[in-house]
Amino acid sequence: MKQFTSVHDVTDINALVTEALALKKDPYAFQHLGKNKTIGLVFLNPSLRTRMSTQKAALNLGMNAMVLNIDKEGWALELQDGAIMNGTTVEHVREAAAVLGQYVDFLGVRSFPGLKDREEDYSETIFNKFVEYCGVPVVSLESATRHPLQSLADLITITELKKVEQPKVVLTWAPHIKALPQAVPNSFAEWMCHADVDFVITHPEGYALSEEFTKNATITHNQQEALAGADFVYVKNWSAYEPYGEMPGSHEDWMLTNQMLEATNDAKVMHCLPVRRNLELSDEILDGPHSVVIHEAGNRVWAAQAVLKQLLESI
Amino acid sequence: MKQFTSVHDVTDINALVTEALALKKDPYAFQHLGKNKTIGLVFLNPSLRTRMSTQKAALNLGMNAMVLNIDKEGWALELQDGAIMNGTTVEHVREAAAVLGQYVDFLGVRSFPGLKDREEDYSETIFNKFVEYCGVPVVSLESATRHPLQSLADLITITELKKVEQPKVVLTWAPHIKALPQAVPNSFAEWMCHADVDFVITHPEGYALSEEFTKNATITHNQQEALAGADFVYVKNWSAYEPYGEMPGSHEDWMLTNQMLEATNDAKVMHCLPVRRNLELSDEILDGPHSVVIHEAGNRVWAAQAVLKQLLESI
Amino acid sequence: MKQFTSVHDVTDINALVTEALALKKDPYAFQHLGKNKTIGLVFLNPSLRTRMSTQKAALNLGMNAMVLNIDKEGWALELQDGAIMNGTTVEHVREAAAVLGQYVDFLGVRSFPGLKDREEDYSETIFNKFVEYCGVPVVSLESATRHPLQSLADLITITELKKVEQPKVVLTWAPHIKALPQAVPNSFAEWMCHADVDFVITHPEGYALSEEFTKNATITHNQQEALAGADFVYVKNWSAYEPYGEMPGSHEDWMLTNQMLEATNDAKVMHCLPVRRNLELSDEILDGPHSVVIHEAGNRVWAAQAVLKQLLESI
Repeated sequence: MKQFTSVHDVTDINALVTEALALKKDPYAFQHLGKNKTIGLVFLNPSLRTRMSTQKAALNLGMNAMVLNIDKEGWALELQDGAIMNGTTVEHVREAAAVLGQYVDFLGVRSFPGLKDREEDYSETIFNKFVEYCGVPVVSLESATRHPLQSLADLITITELKKVEQPKVVLTWAPHIKALPQAVPNSFAEWMCHADVDFVITHPEGYALSEEFTKNATITHNQQEALAGADFVYVKNWSAYEPYGEMPGSHEDWMLTNQMLEATNDAKVMHCLPVRRNLELSDEILDGPHSVVIHEAGNRVWAAQAVLKQLLESI
Repeated sequence: MKQFTSVHDVTDINALVTEALALKKDPYAFQHLGKNKTIGLVFLNPSLRTRMSTQKAALNLGMNAMVLNIDKEGWALELQDGAIMNGTTVEHVREAAAVLGQYVDFLGVRSFPGLKDREEDYSETIFNKFVEYCGVPVVSLESATRHPLQSLADLITITELKKVEQPKVVLTWAPHIKALPQAVPNSFAEWMCHADVDFVITHPEGYALSEEFTKNATITHNQQEALAGADFVYVKNWSAYEPYGEMPGSHEDWMLTNQMLEATNDAKVMHCLPVRRNLELSDEILDGPHSVVIHEAGNRVWAAQAVLKQLLESI
Repeated sequence: MKQFTSVHDVTDINALVTEALALKKDPYAFQHLGKNKTIGLVFLNPSLRTRMSTQKAALNLGMNAMVLNIDKEGWALELQDGAIMNGTTVEHVREAAAVLGQYVDFLGVRSFPGLKDREEDYSETIFNKFVEYCGVPVVSLESATRHPLQSLADLITITELKKVEQPKVVLTWAPHIKALPQAVPNSFAEWMCHADVDFVITHPEGYALSEEFTKNATITHNQQEALAGADFVYVKNWSAYEPYGEMPGSHEDWMLTNQMLEATNDAKVMHCLPVRRNLELSDEILDGPHSVVIHEAGNRVWAAQAVLKQLLESI
């Protein structure tokens, strides 16, 4: 693997999942690989799981991790090419990325979308500048439109917990009070479309994801129909792709309840976290036997570790 | 030791002090214990000594430390059970704690009191949520009502520097302009009541600590009487326990001077730091021969290291 | 070397550059030196290059680095001796420095000038308090008037890339919209005056640096004349030394262009970064063949590593 920015960077996703599960059983077996290797973890946005799990994955492999909250600890970044920097930005992303690449073997980058300008977000302006200028392999720590470390952890979780060969996996939209990015559902859909699952997406009208990510998925506005017979229910809010970043309806009745799960095949409920309790997902589910969200978050370590191991093997 | 949240978690405090002093002489002897073990240090409040000394202690033991300023680098925490999270909080402490527990072998947590609601603070609402949900042994990095790593360092310091078998130790209230928590004096009192010292607390009327922490202590409002013959004088401001969080009188004449120390047995002056100079404690004392505050702060490493060593030996 | 606060702490700058270049070829050869040694990196101001490169240098030498954004993660610092601390500051630098010195073998400190009071800045009030009170060797991560790790990296870069034995090095003032410190040009001038180069400084009237740093330099207000035959052009804005911190004229025509470089000896263009594009330095130069700014930033690792190695050898 040369970089890890989406599922398209993975040659064999089943092999990657197998590798992750092997690392989970034997976390410290490859510490020789990471000796004197360093990953920089650059955050333009908050992070708990990604920040901590990727550090832990690096340590497990004998690597060093250096964390940088670039906007708070470094300098205000300019993103526009050709800008005359006589305003508030102090350092251009071209220099910031290239300089960071001098200090690390791999660069992890987190950069959320603005949710104002779809073309800008979907061309991954900021993230791709880091990829273009840093000169070392990049690991996405969540970009404007994708969160592949999360999706890999999700697939690991499904692989571990599935009771049938080809489980039914349902991605269901959930209510929220704030417009959220499409990165997690995009990425989850993209990975599920590459996995050996029966994949269904359900959301209210107006919340269709970009077709780029959902090509092989069954899509329905009928949540109850989607849930029928589900083995896994992946809960997530997202804002509209069209009109971009808007919230066409609050649909509070889309919040999952135990009763709604009765039609499933005793489904496991997943969520990438953080989750707003009793808005996106009810206490009764999060604290009940269906939820696997903590287990899923724990798998973030093995996802990151499998990715870093393959990157280490490629340099 | 299964966790370190108060003196009650320690089976033998003398043995713990002895262990700390042995580690001070030979800091790197137990690096095999910490191999591939990780502590997460989670801060909801500022920290200098605790942050740095606990990291150093972990490194001395061959462990990894991962630091998280959870409110600034992660997500705004919801603390209320049953809350409908449609406001400004993004992640419930139940998830945050449980997820962090997936990434570390031990979790250090710092969480100050609000000083508004005594019952809430004294039930350690936030801190205990981390204990309850993280699933790994917790180390207090100062909670609403206790700061046991500080108290252990204080006892180490007294043990090192005492000239008589059972020294007289005086905890004296000091002036301040802001209402401060009772965590440090509570904890110090609690540890001194378990230690082989003659322990006296002195404070102006209205500043009585909770009896839970001061059971075996002599308590007096007469500072000069208290100081007579003291071997150690522990200086600290705190706000009132009743009415909770208030400051009944500024009592600027309670600030210790060299003259006030004349009645002591050439006492060593201690303070947990940070200290507001010439408000809580005068320049003449801090810069003079009585002060051991830097030595005391240095002992924070050995306190943390002794605790981590015993925790490592218990898992 | 006992500390690294300016060129005056270096006994043999050529030997230090040679050491740095040797470390660049064989970065991990001295990991035994750093075993169980720790450097604290204390930032009172933003930092990207210094923060990351010094961490990397420490790791290369087998050391631990502990980073502290002291004002944001610790307590608001009081700098005034004798202050009655009844305002907003919580901890005096005397305690903060002394305590940090208890936890580390070396202390790196970054502290920018206020640019209001020249005497205060040029006496290095804050930085020298750390030096005075921490009790361990200090490494400047940029102080009010100097940035020696940058200057060493600059000299390494010149040594690597020079085509003639004694290259002509020109420090040229560049436009900016904000008053910037003199630390980088002061320090660069000071190092160049000790190096085997033909050193010229050019700036508009009113921007003369303190003579303390420029004693052996040729100084001219004629930029074009200065550039003639230059092998290296070091671009940097700074505010006036007299009247202190002011900006006597914006001089936008001083921004370097490819055309202005025609008179040089195919000069390499240097800058310490961050750089405001198209204000201090044009896109055409930063993205063209003359620029060596990324290479120069990369050399920050070897500068820091050579310094830390010599410090490790001295304790």
